[in-house]
Amino acid sequence: MEPVKVGLLGLGTVGGGTLTVLTRNANEIARRAGRGIEIAHAAARDYNPASIEGLEHVGRIGDDAFAVVDDPEIQIVVELIGGYSPARELVLKAIANGKHVVTANKALIARHGNEIFAAAQARGVMVGFEAAVAGGIPIIKALREGLAANHIEWIAGIINGTGNFILTEMRDKGRDFADVLAEAQALGYAEADPTFDVEGIDAAHKLTILGSLAFGIPLQFERCFTEGISKIGALDVTYAAELGYRIKHLGIARRSPGGIELRVHPTLIPERRLIANVDGVMNAVLVKGDAVGPTLYYGAGAGALPTASAVIADLVDVVRTLTTDPNNRVPHLAFQPDELVDTPVLRMDEIETAYYLRLSALDQPGVMARIASILGEEGISIEAIKQKEPGEGETHVPLVMLTHRVIEGRMNEAIARIEALESVQGAVMRIRMESLSG
Amino acid sequence: MEPVKVGLLGLGTVGGGTLTVLTRNANEIARRAGRGIEIAHAAARDYNPASIEGLEHVGRIGDDAFAVVDDPEIQIVVELIGGYSPARELVLKAIANGKHVVTANKALIARHGNEIFAAAQARGVMVGFEAAVAGGIPIIKALREGLAANHIEWIAGIINGTGNFILTEMRDKGRDFADVLAEAQALGYAEADPTFDVEGIDAAHKLTILGSLAFGIPLQFERCFTEGISKIGALDVTYAAELGYRIKHLGIARRSPGGIELRVHPTLIPERRLIANVDGVMNAVLVKGDAVGPTLYYGAGAGALPTASAVIADLVDVVRTLTTDPNNRVPHLAFQPDELVDTPVLRMDEIETAYYLRLSALDQPGVMARIASILGEEGISIEAIKQKEPGEGETHVPLVMLTHRVIEGRMNEAIARIEALESVQGAVMRIRMESLSG
Repeated sequence: MEPVKVGLLGLGTVGGGTLTVLTRNANEIARRAGRGIEIAHAAARDYNPASIEGLEHVGRIGDDAFAVVDDPEIQIVVELIGGYSPARELVLKAIANGKHVVTANKALIARHGNEIFAAAQARGVMVGFEAAVAGGIPIIKALREGLAANHIEWIAGIINGTGNFILTEMRDKGRDFADVLAEAQALGYAEADPTFDVEGIDAAHKLTILGSLAFGIPLQFERCFTEGISKIGALDVTYAAELGYRIKHLGIARRSPGGIELRVHPTLIPERRLIANVDGVMNAVLVKGDAVGPTLYYGAGAGALPTASAVIADLVDVVRTLTTDPNNRVPHLAFQPDELVDTPVLRMDEIETAYYLRLSALDQPGVMARIASILGEEGISIEAIKQKEPGEGETHVPLVMLTHRVIEGRMNEAIARIEALESVQGAVMRIRMESLSG
Repeated sequence: MEPVKVGLLGLGTVGGGTLTVLTRNANEIARRAGRGIEIAHAAARDYNPASIEGLEHVGRIGDDAFAVVDDPEIQIVVELIGGYSPARELVLKAIANGKHVVTANKALIARHGNEIFAAAQARGVMVGFEAAVAGGIPIIKALREGLAANHIEWIAGIINGTGNFILTEMRDKGRDFADVLAEAQALGYAEADPTFDVEGIDAAHKLTILGSLAFGIPLQFERCFTEGISKIGALDVTYAAELGYRIKHLGIARRSPGGIELRVHPTLIPERRLIANVDGVMNAVLVKGDAVGPTLYYGAGAGALPTASAVIADLVDVVRTLTTDPNNRVPHLAFQPDELVDTPVLRMDEIETAYYLRLSALDQPGVMARIASILGEEGISIEAIKQKEPGEGETHVPLVMLTHRVIEGRMNEAIARIEALESVQGAVMRIRMESLSG
């Protein structure tokens, strides 16, 4: 059978990786897909031909991405440019032209996925986006197909490798955030502008997608709560460890009685959980289904070849189902398009979690009692409280507390009252805590 | 749209669980699948109606499985009887009748899968078997679809929950095999006759299936090497821990230059590997692909509801692709049927691994040197050697060694020579060792 003709937009890291893997494993991929996959037309600006294995097998290379999307010979368009524009216009044009699309663009799907999937549905084409979440880990497929029997209760994922590398280094070496960030930038694990990664925006894009797949709700990136890791101190990592916890930057999506939780923030989790031991740049997603219980998916969340693995898995999926009746394909967001529901996404102050609190208090009798009584008045139970040794000649001591679960709004009140105490110095450090068991 | 009519063979643990999940999550499953799934006809002997949630939704229940398979109303047959016969006859009859099949029967697929898939291919129907390996973990789907871009290098799996429970208890409590086995039997984690689980036969069935999916070879259960965990002593678990290793009962499938390795045996693995921390009855499969690197899939490997999760995922897959052209479906063994290759499966004595050796030697000068020199003569390098303290009044001391990688045939020679020494008492305990890194 004739090879399937694919158009490739972008020859950067992932585009180059995709060509490399398609070239190296051409025979094995064709033996699985039933047909060869040929990159017949590619478009890119500013790429380095010498660094890309397999470039010689590309039919035609130009610099006009719209020419690829309009090329009548092309059946599937792979979008690896990234960003919102012109990626959105290109993808919509490809769909309008009746072409299937595969993309690794998490920002695009998180923000414009509803529009893109509606267009694809109307035109009867597929849009694959396995590479948009957790790189090479087939987590989209697991949620959309492998766990289709389940009422999904919650998802908790380490879905940004840069952040996980930084937190792992902070723990292993007792170093501070800024120090490790500089090293990660030098190693190429972090961008020159690290905001996207360390402030949780990248993770929020991915979590938005996972939440929709799990709960059958439209994509709503703007409702995802996001807090970064830049305020975590070496002290917090140490204290957490002393209490039997690790700090991970988690994306958490959960069904709760009032609605859906979508939140990215640093989180204390028990060190004995498997996911607490996912270190360095690796990613992992823990999914709790009512029938299957907890399942975990672990692997490389970024990088040229792992991301290419997911892009090509989508290509093989499309090739295998190229002639399928469009009404009998796997729906983009796991649920049939007319079966999505608009369960509200909760604000962070409506959400219940447990907390780790660290503050600096005057080393005097009665101070701890005053703080405990404020928490009690706000309905917050204390699970553990530890006063650390004061530094030489210091009048204030670090106080660390773990609380039971409480609505964040109440915790905000309590923290405001504690910070207003004269005996308390500076801000209260607050890190949310999850058992990941129920 | 009309619900899809399914026939169910068997109302035991998994059959009952499947009905329960189909009933509880009926609405959510239909929203994903695009149609309802109705158990229109079931057959079972000796089931307990009071214990099965959802039994009232079954159209018709009889005791004749062949009547279900021959029922013209039924589009998909779910086989949950287990064993070879009459499961094989029923599945082949269902296929001959043009019905799709979903099964959780690992023994059936491992032994008769080639015949069953050929029949299904010829008749244009699907046979789903996600539940046959690692219960609720969607590992079949990951290998067959999610990792389709990769040249798979190796797989290492904890794929028998009973065995993993026993090894975990032995480590946590310093107890002996027989002791923990008795407890596992009392808890219902181990069968009255535990041979199938603890001697690795169940794991070998599953590994046979994983190996075929990974490497595109026909199923050949009879070529899978199998060694159980019943000879592992509490001492071995302790010594392994002292050296930084855990003992897990692994199924390993690997491509090596001479052919395919398919082997189930106790294995020392570094304690820092994520899979080394998979404890209790949980399962996990670690897959190394050339593009994606290592990925790991973790979850419940058995039990009514987790297994039902996988059975129903297959049902949803079949429902979603019911009208698909048979030539455009995902091939049963990941590779197109005419693309399977007959790469030879190696004998165990042709396979290279590292080893942990424990033996009891006379506490005299020169004995250790004699043993080391035998190993040297056989081309075996020693990585570590530890002589333990002798017991009160004992003339022999335990000697523990870790070796570098060597062909097992050479190791067999060396062990025979060491056991023949007068200064060595009894047999040499040998446990294979894998780094799971490369």
